[in-house]
Amino acid sequence: MSLLEKINSPSDLKSLSRSDLPVLAAEIRDVIVDVVSRNGGHLASSLGAVELAIAIHYVFDAPDDKIIWDVGHQAYAHKLITGRREQFHTLRQYQGICGFTRMSESPYDAFSTGHSSTSISASLGMACAKRLKNDKSKVVAVIGDGSMTAGLAFEGLNQAGDIHKDLVVIFNDNDMSIARNVGAVSSLLSRTFSAKYMQDFKKELGDFLKSLPKIGGDVYQFAKRSEESLKNLITPGILFEAFNFEYFGPINGHKLNHLIDILNNIKCLKEPVLLHITTKKGKGYPPAEKNPVYFHGVGSFEVETGNCIKKKGPIPAYTEVFGNTMVELARKDNKIIAVTAAMPEGTGLSIFAETYPERFFDVGIAEQHGVTFAAGLAAEGFKPVVAIYSTFLQRAYDQILHDVCIEALPVIFAVDRGGIVGDDGATHNGLFDLSYLRSLPNMVVMAPKDENELRRMLVTSMSHNGPIAFRYPRGRGTGVNISEDIVPLPIGKGEVLKEGDDILILAIGRPVCEALSAHSKLAEEHNISSTVVNCRFVKPLDSELITSLAKKIPRIITIEENVRQGGFGSAVLECLNDEGVTSFHLKRIGIPDIFVEHGPQELLRSKYNIDASSIVNAARELMNQC
Amino acid sequence: MSLLEKINSPSDLKSLSRSDLPVLAAEIRDVIVDVVSRNGGHLASSLGAVELAIAIHYVFDAPDDKIIWDVGHQAYAHKLITGRREQFHTLRQYQGICGFTRMSESPYDAFSTGHSSTSISASLGMACAKRLKNDKSKVVAVIGDGSMTAGLAFEGLNQAGDIHKDLVVIFNDNDMSIARNVGAVSSLLSRTFSAKYMQDFKKELGDFLKSLPKIGGDVYQFAKRSEESLKNLITPGILFEAFNFEYFGPINGHKLNHLIDILNNIKCLKEPVLLHITTKKGKGYPPAEKNPVYFHGVGSFEVETGNCIKKKGPIPAYTEVFGNTMVELARKDNKIIAVTAAMPEGTGLSIFAETYPERFFDVGIAEQHGVTFAAGLAAEGFKPVVAIYSTFLQRAYDQILHDVCIEALPVIFAVDRGGIVGDDGATHNGLFDLSYLRSLPNMVVMAPKDENELRRMLVTSMSHNGPIAFRYPRGRGTGVNISEDIVPLPIGKGEVLKEGDDILILAIGRPVCEALSAHSKLAEEHNISSTVVNCRFVKPLDSELITSLAKKIPRIITIEENVRQGGFGSAVLECLNDEGVTSFHLKRIGIPDIFVEHGPQELLRSKYNIDASSIVNAARELMNQC
Repeated sequence: MSLLEKINSPSDLKSLSRSDLPVLAAEIRDVIVDVVSRNGGHLASSLGAVELAIAIHYVFDAPDDKIIWDVGHQAYAHKLITGRREQFHTLRQYQGICGFTRMSESPYDAFSTGHSSTSISASLGMACAKRLKNDKSKVVAVIGDGSMTAGLAFEGLNQAGDIHKDLVVIFNDNDMSIARNVGAVSSLLSRTFSAKYMQDFKKELGDFLKSLPKIGGDVYQFAKRSEESLKNLITPGILFEAFNFEYFGPINGHKLNHLIDILNNIKCLKEPVLLHITTKKGKGYPPAEKNPVYFHGVGSFEVETGNCIKKKGPIPAYTEVFGNTMVELARKDNKIIAVTAAMPEGTGLSIFAETYPERFFDVGIAEQHGVTFAAGLAAEGFKPVVAIYSTFLQRAYDQILHDVCIEALPVIFAVDRGGIVGDDGATHNGLFDLSYLRSLPNMVVMAPKDENELRRMLVTSMSHNGPIAFRYPRGRGTGVNISEDIVPLPIGKGEVLKEGDDILILAIGRPVCEALSAHSKLAEEHNISSTVVNCRFVKPLDSELITSLAKKIPRIITIEENVRQGGFGSAVLECLNDEGVTSFHLKRIGIPDIFVEHGPQELLRSKYNIDASSIVNAARELMNQC
Repeated sequence: MSLLEKINSPSDLKSLSRSDLPVLAAEIRDVIVDVVSRNGGHLASSLGAVELAIAIHYVFDAPDDKIIWDVGHQAYAHKLITGRREQFHTLRQYQGICGFTRMSESPYDAFSTGHSSTSISASLGMACAKRLKNDKSKVVAVIGDGSMTAGLAFEGLNQAGDIHKDLVVIFNDNDMSIARNVGAVSSLLSRTFSAKYMQDFKKELGDFLKSLPKIGGDVYQFAKRSEESLKNLITPGILFEAFNFEYFGPINGHKLNHLIDILNNIKCLKEPVLLHITTKKGKGYPPAEKNPVYFHGVGSFEVETGNCIKKKGPIPAYTEVFGNTMVELARKDNKIIAVTAAMPEGTGLSIFAETYPERFFDVGIAEQHGVTFAAGLAAEGFKPVVAIYSTFLQRAYDQILHDVCIEALPVIFAVDRGGIVGDDGATHNGLFDLSYLRSLPNMVVMAPKDENELRRMLVTSMSHNGPIAFRYPRGRGTGVNISEDIVPLPIGKGEVLKEGDDILILAIGRPVCEALSAHSKLAEEHNISSTVVNCRFVKPLDSELITSLAKKIPRIITIEENVRQGGFGSAVLECLNDEGVTSFHLKRIGIPDIFVEHGPQELLRSKYNIDASSIVNAARELMNQC
């Protein structure tokens, strides 16, 4: 029997001797590598935090003590030792356990995470609550260096230091967020206490001391000079102490004994504490240590070699088509700029970054800044393309509204991962963008039916003088031919793909292919003829086309991969109502008023009726009704 | 002729001798005080930045050099010397000049502002654009210490230091954002270079030096000890240098000569520069110097005394009723917590803060953090009430969705300033909340018809176990009786206020009073009888009531003070459609697809048809149509 098999809760862990723990860590790594090699997942971060999870649960008393894992993608070891060992093989699978922490999954998951940088704020709220209740238990936030670049983390740190509650922040520093870390603070943090550093430290201290006899009466000059001498002495410790945290570290986050000792000490402190640990992403699995960016979020792979199992098919992903088209267009137009928020690979922009480094900006995990930064570029006559996943763009809602839309600045939003994303689940689905973007004045909102139309929308955006967004799905395109010549689209015009008299199908984005397939099934199996419109624009809607067709074909189906509330179907209802079209029957197919769980995209699309057979059923119902 | 009368652009300013400038500053202050005393406005901040605006335009060459005033409420002097002297008396008046900077108002307004902390990001975008264009002109961001607490400012600073572009940030430090400044960084920044400080500096340096002989082989111990000795040596300069900015200051921001000299020097540098100036809010106008919080945003006042001109009427503002009810409820329920983002006065929570200081949290200008912090409080069993203006809550859209709604945590959102806010204009209107909140799963969205119903909605929220929001207008209530006994509302139920057969008026929030007045007018002047429903809930809608009435009375008017796209009327259309009600004529009254400008609330409501006479007109049209 392995050690891990005996661990059903942290109290079982506490009964192990310290000398057993490295063995346990190795067992946990084996399980993580095995399950992720089959299910895919966030491998590198979770391997880096195995000793940390063990040490935290060895020292603290969860679930009374609250452990909040920022993002939650590094919490696999935590899941294994908090009662989810037996379900762990279901990681990220439909109805299996979630790839992030979820309060509804386990009492040991103190907060639900997925987006970055929430842990300090949430844990400060819990710490304040505990003090008000006179509850002596502890709150621990674990946050990576990448997450520290987001403004939300800064806001949390800033208030935590100010109100000075009893709170432990463990800063897990692997000098790597998802890709290369960016930002001035990050480069500061990467100075560790090497022998070389200490030499410099002493040398600069010497220079500083030498300057002392020159102190005169001019306080300002003295202060200025002292600062200049001191500035290179700044360490991560000093920075966090400036935030009024008691700082410990940096210590090696893979040395269990040292970790446990220091956590035991910290546990007794009654103030904000920051423990700085350094870890290695992918630790213990050589392929992931070698290529932590690839193994950040990974699909299934061969354990021995680390090679990806799924062969790359002939059909490119939307992301890839977007990235390549950006490079193609940028060749002819030097006003095109690419902006990403810590996702050069994820958004397909790596190749742009290599080809046009001076026109590529990775702002780090800082979506708010990315959008306002792009507004500044646009104000100076450039064409910034902000490529951010739909779910993360939510962070910049106010910047889109306030900094881009009010003055109608020509910022282009390439909204990747719109719709159901699959295995990452509720926190990562892009199911709200059509609703929140279309309510903004001056904004144009599009969704392509296939990867070729994505190219056309990108070109359309380049020549539009105002804010414009197009959202496209995660995953492969439809396999359509890619035309070399990219023809722009007329703004606000849809296209009729099929004609028929019985049913009017108005579709947007990926579901257009479902509508086409439904069109055939309806004709072949049910003798129902249908008109299929690829609407292309959620805003401005092609109201002329839609109203004229609706008057002729009053049995209407709208389909979108977005929540129904305020989405595309809702826009169609508004349009028909405003245009005085009253006698119709309309069925809105879209995501119901819930958060969609994790699971395979196709399964979830079928479950939530975003598919051809739902269109067929709706059409048959409408034919029976009226 | 005054000096100011000669200034029609910054080039006129440059022709003045330095010795004239203090006279000009005094003239500018007189004009600002005079105009704001009549029109209201942001007095204290603008008075504090008079010398700064003069010095900047004396040294830099706008509009080629871009000057970005963060928030823009301190830019009145900038407006006066950039060609808007003659229109300045129209400040914040309908069709007059805006109280913030607007690109569409003047080429000297390099970026449109209103919300805080955007200036560093926007100016970095412009600086990058200029370098790409090989344009040597400069970009200057002016940002206050309050704005520095927002994560967006941190994100901007972090990237600016990293990519190291030629950019000037002027940090205007008045130790005061809107109210008292909060946050650890703020308390750090408030350590100025006083004699006392220098004494401590020397003493700590001494202690530090004394510790040196003890340096042993343990590098970690040494580093830890050195840091502890050094941490109190941290100055604002060191902090900003850590961000890779060249730091200058702090210097007195009212000494024109010194300001001009240092700006001249800085202008030549080719790297990110931070100039730290200290100013006094309200400078030069004693009542504002004495009470800068009151004179931050002020209505009309008597210049001699500073006394408010408008007498407080007998009808309380919604904000006031909210604040008092919070105190009343908190007396009986110690789980109630109040959270605000730098707006204790503005949200009516000052009295709560005084009465229950331990249950009051002002997180500073940090709406994202405020919401996630509240999620943490809710996770521990408290009832956090997050009171934030509608427009500023936009900053926390993702935190509402991701940190509150996914797990359905019982966080209460008191959304003040919903609807048209009046003089502050486009950046401050709260016209999107019904749309963006109702598309979120698990969220309940309400709007009270009057101040008494606001109390009932607050009580309703307290007993609801999930996310819930109510939005209410800026300004006075309707003058209705306030019942001492506060009866909670059943979730998702509207109330029929008037009955009639011809027209069905579905109203939400403040427009309910317009609906009642339209009901009387329709009956008296047009012999049209109408049913008036106070819907109370935008989500969940009272679909039972609405559909049953719509079937009986198919001439329907919806009215809301929110954009029409995706708003309340759109929800009614969705509901009727989903319930299979097809034969009706519906007119959606709401804000069209534009940003509403500044001007008196009543004028704008009438302009955009959010009033009784628009309901009357719509009703008559519907009667004629069908």
